[in-house]
Amino acid sequence: MNFIETLNQAVENHQSHLSVGLDIDSDRIDSKSVLDVSELADYTRKVIDATREFAAAYKPNMAFFERWGSAGIRWLEETIEYIGDEHFLICDGKRGDIGNSARQYAKSVFVHYGFDAVTVSPYMGSDAIIPFLEEPKKGAFVLCLTSNESAAELQLQKIDGIPLYESVIELCQRLNSNANCGLVVGATQESKLASIREKAGDMPILIPGVGAQGGDLEASVRVGNSDGVALINVSRSILFAGDQSSKAISAKAREYNNRMNEILEINSG
Amino acid sequence: MNFIETLNQAVENHQSHLSVGLDIDSDRIDSKSVLDVSELADYTRKVIDATREFAAAYKPNMAFFERWGSAGIRWLEETIEYIGDEHFLICDGKRGDIGNSARQYAKSVFVHYGFDAVTVSPYMGSDAIIPFLEEPKKGAFVLCLTSNESAAELQLQKIDGIPLYESVIELCQRLNSNANCGLVVGATQESKLASIREKAGDMPILIPGVGAQGGDLEASVRVGNSDGVALINVSRSILFAGDQSSKAISAKAREYNNRMNEILEINSG
Repeated sequence: MNFIETLNQAVENHQSHLSVGLDIDSDRIDSKSVLDVSELADYTRKVIDATREFAAAYKPNMAFFERWGSAGIRWLEETIEYIGDEHFLICDGKRGDIGNSARQYAKSVFVHYGFDAVTVSPYMGSDAIIPFLEEPKKGAFVLCLTSNESAAELQLQKIDGIPLYESVIELCQRLNSNANCGLVVGATQESKLASIREKAGDMPILIPGVGAQGGDLEASVRVGNSDGVALINVSRSILFAGDQSSKAISAKAREYNNRMNEILEINSG
Repeated sequence: MNFIETLNQAVENHQSHLSVGLDIDSDRIDSKSVLDVSELADYTRKVIDATREFAAAYKPNMAFFERWGSAGIRWLEETIEYIGDEHFLICDGKRGDIGNSARQYAKSVFVHYGFDAVTVSPYMGSDAIIPFLEEPKKGAFVLCLTSNESAAELQLQKIDGIPLYESVIELCQRLNSNANCGLVVGATQESKLASIREKAGDMPILIPGVGAQGGDLEASVRVGNSDGVALINVSRSILFAGDQSSKAISAKAREYNNRMNEILEINSG
């Protein structure tokens, strides 16, 4: 299966467009003591078990694993193994370096860890993106218009009347001969999502920023999936839902999955 | 000591502006068999011992360690410990994510590993840079104008007549209240280095791209250090010099150090 088929199959099999972001922040877990990595790993397994049924994808955020050095990376390796083969796996590392280094990052995320996709920064241009697109079974989501406040500082600047993020879409289209390049567009950018979807054609879009960051779920789901597929990522709102029990986490994941399917008029069965 | 004092002291103590980039690529090491991580670690120690006297800084390239997962990160941890406290330590990870994640990356590079500085991508704006500048003893080198061919695709695009990389300089100056923000400028960009140095004032500049990438050593050293300090990074030309013996690696590092000091008319003693 190629990249898009793998992605579509995960969406179909789980009847879900939900990506669960694994930003397991020890400071957000209710606990009387400071948690060690093995306790964070316990919490991660709890989240995975509580959300398997409702998620199409998992998106480990590399920052939260790297925080703990090699012990954190062992935790990441165990997490990937624990998730198994039934979900689409996105490495959220925002990698971006010249070809020689990017090829090593590609080996790391695709060969060593076995991720299906990785998030990539476009600042260094195509050299920094191409190594992630060479294997048709794997792919990249390139940062386009992000969910954070300061995204405007560079991404909305206009070059000959065209905002920088649109240049990134054009760049990605040029590099998309293997049909395995997608975009990252923040859910807080709902006013621009329709024009991005139009320009991007059927490229897959990864949309973070729903939930804690306040992005618009309905616009993200509807417009994102109007052509091609969009995964909607939710992290904190699910990971630390309610009393942080399996039940609360599971209920929140189910709620997001159901709301997305309602918006898309998919019968969850 | 604050960031600049730490950097200046490393330069003074070693009478060197040389940063040795640790891009330990198993494919470039002469060997009859495929090397494992422990053999790569042996090679890394050999490089460090052969270059200690001539380097002001070491710059581990995260891609080459991450390539091997948790075993690679243990190798990185051991490498940092082996380098010790006498050199300036730069994490070359080109990190760049929103505040919540960037804070975790900052904990990873500064607290867990103990790096002095990290390379950061500016695409997401100030949210993605500020967390690396909050501790005055530590700092960031932000990607400005990089050494690779496709750097031009976005970085040279003009916004109201001003190229994007100059907007990055302005952004960094606004964020530099702790005097711990520097820039990454490729040595292959020698025609623009003088104007970058002028606009950047005395911000430190990290200049990769000398050696294998063909950047101009003399311009990099002279212009880079015309105001403020510049570290000139060399990776492959030193790491895999000659017959890859300690002697060959050491001789190449000495040669770079001497040439830089000659350009700067520093008496190496």
